[in-house]
Amino acid sequence: MKSQIVTFLIKCPDQKGLVSKITSFFFEKGFNILSCQQYVNAIEDTYFMRVRLNADGTNISKAVLENSFLELAEPLNFKWSVNYGDKKQQVAIMVSHTSHNLYDLLERAKEGRLACTIKMIISNHDTLRPIANMFDIPYYYLPVTRETKLQQEAEVLNLLEAHKVDLIIMARYMQILSPSFINHFPERIINIHHSFLPAFQGANPYKKAYERGVKLIGATAHYATEDLDEGPIIEQDVKPVTHESTPSTLKRIGADIEKLVLANAVKCHLNNQIIVAGNRAIVFPEAGE
Amino acid sequence: MKSQIVTFLIKCPDQKGLVSKITSFFFEKGFNILSCQQYVNAIEDTYFMRVRLNADGTNISKAVLENSFLELAEPLNFKWSVNYGDKKQQVAIMVSHTSHNLYDLLERAKEGRLACTIKMIISNHDTLRPIANMFDIPYYYLPVTRETKLQQEAEVLNLLEAHKVDLIIMARYMQILSPSFINHFPERIINIHHSFLPAFQGANPYKKAYERGVKLIGATAHYATEDLDEGPIIEQDVKPVTHESTPSTLKRIGADIEKLVLANAVKCHLNNQIIVAGNRAIVFPEAGE
Amino acid sequence: MKSQIVTFLIKCPDQKGLVSKITSFFFEKGFNILSCQQYVNAIEDTYFMRVRLNADGTNISKAVLENSFLELAEPLNFKWSVNYGDKKQQVAIMVSHTSHNLYDLLERAKEGRLACTIKMIISNHDTLRPIANMFDIPYYYLPVTRETKLQQEAEVLNLLEAHKVDLIIMARYMQILSPSFINHFPERIINIHHSFLPAFQGANPYKKAYERGVKLIGATAHYATEDLDEGPIIEQDVKPVTHESTPSTLKRIGADIEKLVLANAVKCHLNNQIIVAGNRAIVFPEAGE
Amino acid sequence: MKSQIVTFLIKCPDQKGLVSKITSFFFEKGFNILSCQQYVNAIEDTYFMRVRLNADGTNISKAVLENSFLELAEPLNFKWSVNYGDKKQQVAIMVSHTSHNLYDLLERAKEGRLACTIKMIISNHDTLRPIANMFDIPYYYLPVTRETKLQQEAEVLNLLEAHKVDLIIMARYMQILSPSFINHFPERIINIHHSFLPAFQGANPYKKAYERGVKLIGATAHYATEDLDEGPIIEQDVKPVTHESTPSTLKRIGADIEKLVLANAVKCHLNNQIIVAGNRAIVFPEAGE
Repeated sequence: MKSQIVTFLIKCPDQKGLVSKITSFFFEKGFNILSCQQYVNAIEDTYFMRVRLNADGTNISKAVLENSFLELAEPLNFKWSVNYGDKKQQVAIMVSHTSHNLYDLLERAKEGRLACTIKMIISNHDTLRPIANMFDIPYYYLPVTRETKLQQEAEVLNLLEAHKVDLIIMARYMQILSPSFINHFPERIINIHHSFLPAFQGANPYKKAYERGVKLIGATAHYATEDLDEGPIIEQDVKPVTHESTPSTLKRIGADIEKLVLANAVKCHLNNQIIVAGNRAIVFPEAGE
Repeated sequence: MKSQIVTFLIKCPDQKGLVSKITSFFFEKGFNILSCQQYVNAIEDTYFMRVRLNADGTNISKAVLENSFLELAEPLNFKWSVNYGDKKQQVAIMVSHTSHNLYDLLERAKEGRLACTIKMIISNHDTLRPIANMFDIPYYYLPVTRETKLQQEAEVLNLLEAHKVDLIIMARYMQILSPSFINHFPERIINIHHSFLPAFQGANPYKKAYERGVKLIGATAHYATEDLDEGPIIEQDVKPVTHESTPSTLKRIGADIEKLVLANAVKCHLNNQIIVAGNRAIVFPEAGE
Repeated sequence: MKSQIVTFLIKCPDQKGLVSKITSFFFEKGFNILSCQQYVNAIEDTYFMRVRLNADGTNISKAVLENSFLELAEPLNFKWSVNYGDKKQQVAIMVSHTSHNLYDLLERAKEGRLACTIKMIISNHDTLRPIANMFDIPYYYLPVTRETKLQQEAEVLNLLEAHKVDLIIMARYMQILSPSFINHFPERIINIHHSFLPAFQGANPYKKAYERGVKLIGATAHYATEDLDEGPIIEQDVKPVTHESTPSTLKRIGADIEKLVLANAVKCHLNNQIIVAGNRAIVFPEAGE
Repeated sequence: MKSQIVTFLIKCPDQKGLVSKITSFFFEKGFNILSCQQYVNAIEDTYFMRVRLNADGTNISKAVLENSFLELAEPLNFKWSVNYGDKKQQVAIMVSHTSHNLYDLLERAKEGRLACTIKMIISNHDTLRPIANMFDIPYYYLPVTRETKLQQEAEVLNLLEAHKVDLIIMARYMQILSPSFINHFPERIINIHHSFLPAFQGANPYKKAYERGVKLIGATAHYATEDLDEGPIIEQDVKPVTHESTPSTLKRIGADIEKLVLANAVKCHLNNQIIVAGNRAIVFPEAGE
């Protein structure tokens, strides 16, 4: 495990002594604690911790570490996960017609600014294949109609499982995924919605924003759940607009918001900064990373 | 009319030659055009203009000016208004328990940063009277129950009419005004709602924002219409928040947004920057003012 | 110490085991750790911690706590401070002609949104006395000329010491304080500068901003040090402006930025969120407070 | 000229009747005025206008239009230019090692979100050639040393002139261009500086920002002039940062600001939204475009 950065994410009922017990555990195992971030939800009496360790000072194996940690975790009712930073996450991007998020994600991955491997692009249209070609990423064109929806989803599922995909990014994929599909990937599908949720859920948010005469437009990246546009929010941003903006101006201005919001959300996910609690996403900031 | 700044607001069907005809009219009458702002809504084929004039070079009377302008306006189907900047608007502020917007408005008016006279504060509680006393503004405590609502509104109406109030600011007045009351003051009641509308309409927006786990909270100033929280939006702003924020933290952060958003909306109204079209507010920016 | 919130601020050379040692210390003394925030500066190998404790579960006295903590602190080379939250800080506000920051601070203190007691207002002009009277705060008018500068500063110093002032807020006090004065109050004088430092240091920043044609203007709150406008920055913010803005428009827009930036900086100071390291201010965010 | 959008940019001494005279001129020639934006600088008594015309209702030729306009322009001392929107501007991008601005500009041009033709990429390094290849843009590698600087600039100049380049974008080109080179392209070179100018001029702004401990970092797009980082500012933006940010974190956060700021500045230039006056850039907003 030498030279690795190990990240633990922990969620448990709040109780006295947690930070001391957890940090002492890692200290005694020989780890250097790079950062240790906590959040106490006093309304629901729950405790959340993200701890990043440098494994330089220890020879402990993953198995021994995890077994020891279990002894600490069980009596304290931890829900926890650990990431060893030793393999890049495998990512699939799903798109329809819109290219800006796709370009942005491919560029960031290629330039090393998103720590992942883009394994494939899946689309219900063939429109964006040239972009996949530019970046040398396999492109799967799987058209869908109301009648073939379940079958198409099964094909998508097969692809994702065959390639051991860890994370699915819906980068303006304009189809509603079935609950059954979504439940295969809990907290592993990130969607970008082109409004400041919960405003303007559903279709045509820029048209609705124009009609309502709002003075800011936004975008929201969230985990996909069974309820459309209702999943835990990871990142949101807005930009000011004026009465001059038509629905198509809003779309253009919005594209730049969508790019940054989705890229940041994906970065936080890949970087193990997120713990989901009910319908809220605890997103720890980077700690000098 | 010497030395006055005269502001015309015009709304009409779009057609060729409007800017030329309107500006030539004012030029020929001897006015200096300080600024001339237009907006064409190509979706609805409507035209909007705000023109500010310096009357230094003319001796024309108001009556003559308006009669001449009518000759231009009628064949072109103008809806228009003119403000001569020669008397300050009379303002009433309605509040319940919350003090931050009230302090802010009173301070701005006192320091000459809001061009109006605060004639009175009306409240359904007696809580904020000491603030009214600090600023020497009459405070009317008119409690209200479900049973006395219509009667209380009648009293409020009497007060407003007796003092020739031009603008009513609902600075966190936590009562729903009746349609009949609101229709007395079309485009003359400005309300602050403590969320980024249309998200979180109705009561307890900060609690709802916490539960939804949003990453930004906002405030919206709008003209009050019969439909609660549905009126034309004048100004909106947001600030980032995190999972750490409790409903009471959100309330505190939100207070600072509410202050600026309401003050800016009121400034735009007093400064004749707004034309309402349907449910959208055209808010012209200041032009070197 | 029952029911108190105790806050420790710690700065030391970075080394393994710090978080474990510190949190175990407080756990063993019976405290509940409400939050524990760290920052490691890997460039300078320094470690910073802010830990907030609930003293409900312990009967330890301040003296015993501090003596025990010293035993931990000395071998690890801590520089530290502790605040028991049991007395409000005593604050003096220094102003010249400009009223907006003064109103804002007085309102926040009066409404309980700044945890301090405003003991006095000191000014080199008599202009703002009516505001002091509105809020019932003693106002000291101490005019100053080049010749009387040292003497006036001595009078100010006497006042501050006589009233055991903990924090001095320069809310647009347009005099340069002498190094000797400033050195009496290390990290205890907060100044607001009306530009986004380090841009436009010194006098007339809004005029300079106009001339440079910047598209954003800002404000900066910082601790005062011997070098004018060079002290550790606590808080900054900006707002967009356009070519339309004149120096006086910039001044007006800037006033709203200055108010929020100064109020937030003061809040962070009073709330023990700040550790200064060289010329940088480590400002921990609120942790569910 | 049928169906074209014609844009006039006008700068002149302020005087009565300008808007009336100019708009009447275009109305009489049969144009439909799509938008007419003005700015009066009362400090310097200068007047600026951007007027967009739809040529559908006229058969006038460019020559006749311009000759007629001259008769209006000369007595009123106009400096003016006209753009017929009938040919895309030819653009060269200059880069060194940094890829993010390059990707962003190429993507926008390819997707039709920047109205220009990217004719070439010129670099003093061969590093970014693969990106040029992805987008099928000619890449000229012209290395430079202190000794070969003038010669290299002459080669660059030859290339630009041979391809009739209208606009040069310095997308993180880390060489200082000679005054003689810059004077060949007045108001036709746009540079991105990775700080909020005038803060942190010159080299290593992110390192300087870290050392100064600022709480916001920014980027500035400006026209290149003889004085490094002193040219007229077109666009600026900032993002909040904290003490946690290292110089390399700042660089990463800054990259996203740089992309948007440069792309917006280029868009405004290509869209004829800018008039330069001394060291200030008048940037008219889009008018429903």
